[in-house]
Amino acid sequence: MALNELSATEAARRIAQGAITSEALVQACLDRIEAREPTVQAWSAIDPKAALRQAKERDRGPSLGPLHGVPIAVKDVLDTYDLRTEMGSPIYRGHRASADAACVALARAAGAVILGKTVTAEFAGSAPGPTTNPHDSGHTPGGSSSGSAAAVADRMVPVAFGTQTAGSVLRPASFCGIVGYKPTFGTINRAGLKFAAESLDTIGLLARSLDDIALMRSVLIGVASELSEAPPLVAVPRIGLCRTYLWNEAAAETRNAVEVAGERLAAGGALIEDFVLPDDFAGLSETSEIISNVERSRAMAHEWHHHRKRLSPQLVARISAGLDTPNSRYVEALRFAEHCRIQLDMMLAGFDALLAPAASGEAPRGLDSTGDSAFQALWTLLHGPTVSLPAATGPNGLPVGIQLIAPRYRDEALLRTAWWAWDVLSRREPAQALVA
Amino acid sequence: MALNELSATEAARRIAQGAITSEALVQACLDRIEAREPTVQAWSAIDPKAALRQAKERDRGPSLGPLHGVPIAVKDVLDTYDLRTEMGSPIYRGHRASADAACVALARAAGAVILGKTVTAEFAGSAPGPTTNPHDSGHTPGGSSSGSAAAVADRMVPVAFGTQTAGSVLRPASFCGIVGYKPTFGTINRAGLKFAAESLDTIGLLARSLDDIALMRSVLIGVASELSEAPPLVAVPRIGLCRTYLWNEAAAETRNAVEVAGERLAAGGALIEDFVLPDDFAGLSETSEIISNVERSRAMAHEWHHHRKRLSPQLVARISAGLDTPNSRYVEALRFAEHCRIQLDMMLAGFDALLAPAASGEAPRGLDSTGDSAFQALWTLLHGPTVSLPAATGPNGLPVGIQLIAPRYRDEALLRTAWWAWDVLSRREPAQALVA
Repeated sequence: MALNELSATEAARRIAQGAITSEALVQACLDRIEAREPTVQAWSAIDPKAALRQAKERDRGPSLGPLHGVPIAVKDVLDTYDLRTEMGSPIYRGHRASADAACVALARAAGAVILGKTVTAEFAGSAPGPTTNPHDSGHTPGGSSSGSAAAVADRMVPVAFGTQTAGSVLRPASFCGIVGYKPTFGTINRAGLKFAAESLDTIGLLARSLDDIALMRSVLIGVASELSEAPPLVAVPRIGLCRTYLWNEAAAETRNAVEVAGERLAAGGALIEDFVLPDDFAGLSETSEIISNVERSRAMAHEWHHHRKRLSPQLVARISAGLDTPNSRYVEALRFAEHCRIQLDMMLAGFDALLAPAASGEAPRGLDSTGDSAFQALWTLLHGPTVSLPAATGPNGLPVGIQLIAPRYRDEALLRTAWWAWDVLSRREPAQALVA
Repeated sequence: MALNELSATEAARRIAQGAITSEALVQACLDRIEAREPTVQAWSAIDPKAALRQAKERDRGPSLGPLHGVPIAVKDVLDTYDLRTEMGSPIYRGHRASADAACVALARAAGAVILGKTVTAEFAGSAPGPTTNPHDSGHTPGGSSSGSAAAVADRMVPVAFGTQTAGSVLRPASFCGIVGYKPTFGTINRAGLKFAAESLDTIGLLARSLDDIALMRSVLIGVASELSEAPPLVAVPRIGLCRTYLWNEAAAETRNAVEVAGERLAAGGALIEDFVLPDDFAGLSETSEIISNVERSRAMAHEWHHHRKRLSPQLVARISAGLDTPNSRYVEALRFAEHCRIQLDMMLAGFDALLAPAASGEAPRGLDSTGDSAFQALWTLLHGPTVSLPAATGPNGLPVGIQLIAPRYRDEALLRTAWWAWDVLSRREPAQALVA
């Protein structure tokens, strides 16, 4: 396996063993980028010499931590002190932050090499950057974490930071055929993140394997990375198959992927039960829009008043909608979201996870839109952890994901369930029943 | 009344009427600052020429909004594009942000003149800046919004932004004898705020009158400023006298101020009932510490790894405590806080407000500490709106505040109750019963 194809976990292991150098690994990633970047356009800022310099420092010095020598990518709405932070907007062309965002600093302190910044849709919103889907450059990679998803899927880097306000981690992960993880709201510290909508913005991760998600998570919250030990589940997973109120808006490939995954997980030993959201949860999509628009309209006040002509029409429309929303409607939306969060937590007692669509379908053709965020947005609003796994391919041969969801703060259990599920779904032979 | 003593509301009215100019008002504030700043030391960055230039622009131009021509002050953990943002730390000496924080941009767009940045304790924590209490320079003004409270109390500016993570708005307001307002968590958008602890950090306001609080609030959330019309209450206020589990730690002047306020509000027509917090709420103080330390330890990762020697011993101790806290303990703390929030909301149904101590006592002597945050921290953790009002004087003749608290999102009702209460408490004659 070429070095740029290694997982972060495997790369860290080999570096620690002295089997490979960080420099060789980073060079392999840079070579891949040089070859593919003209097509994929995943990066907004990259400094190959500086990346190699960091790698050589890691090779010379003592181990700094679990990510020692491993290259990672950073979505360009997160500050870095050594690379430009432009947020997908001409307003911030050439902008340099004075410090790393907290999550970047934590990864760097654990030994990571910051390989570069990845393309974001404008201010983590919906106006796309130039990135293409690595599986077919005529299709969107999804967004707003477009560059992070594309770079990881294209083997340019093993793992990347993304952010999700509606569907900006899981949708691109699903469209690009990789693993997306949106933790419980607040899990990854947001200092140094350019806010879109602060009661929704969640920093997440994109990787090609769940153990890389677990490894990064362990560094960011200071816990041991238990998943990389692939712990067995101690009981039969109980999974609710949740079609959501959006089921009829899902493409056939998505509905099929979810149904087939349910069947295969059942065959693998899981208890699969239909799980129906309460009727009033159908209000979550509009609620997410209201909160997002109002909070954006406030967070972007400086750009709105000083640089309005350099905002995209999409963003101007969102901010205008936010400014037109009465504060009472916003507060009502916040209260409704909290009501649903508490209700879902209670309903999920006894379930290990919900199984739901990750996106409406495979990546749409064209680069003018990053796709529909509805299938991710309701879960973002509910604040619980969600993981997307590549599970099928669509009519154009592009990846189709499934989503697993757990109650708030049950991230570790969700990752274990996802680990088990992916193991079952990857098997060709009939799955073996689990022993409790 | 000297121009620098005007409230923001009155100043805005006179400017709109053409009775005074913004330039004259700003000049009066600058004169006061020139006279008193050597003693009070409230400002970390001020540019008199730039402030006067803004004022003259306001005088020449059409009205931009409800704050047209009114000078305001900004705590130095909030970004401003035209003045240094140093956060009370030598690490950021001379630092300039590229954009205004959202709240600053919103105030500026409504016509405010940004008079200057006010001294903050280091990163809105507990290592004090040089500011003194305007009532007695041998005493702390409180913190961490030290400069904002002192500047407003000293008539250098009518209103200022502060931030509260534990007690950083209401304690200095109480110590300096002014009004402090910590809205419901999330009310004032935090884009452009340097985070201390993101699940607690709340942007608040310091002023000398409640109508100025209402005016600023209206601009920041886009609602009409109804309070400045002094609407009558439509029913007898029902107020719970909440001594809290910290009552025995309150100084005599504080206990007295709360008891007397209760009696006078009852005489003024309120229903005053004892309100006892559930026993387990005594865990809120430790819970606040845990959350604050863990979140700080993550948010400050860049400074910790690059500039540790330039952090105060107080902050090093907090970050170390945070790093030593298991993530499971942190998550437990988050869950407990949410449990208490929901419980308090339910218990407060039917109450207009709680009445509680604002601080442990009058401002302590000395400038080495900004005082004890316990009496504010539990309410900050509970996320509801709180207001402090000056209500008495202590043994050293320094101000003593009371605090009024409401359930989350009931800010407007709380401000009305506070308005009524202050009216009653300011009267010398026996209060008249309210007509429902």
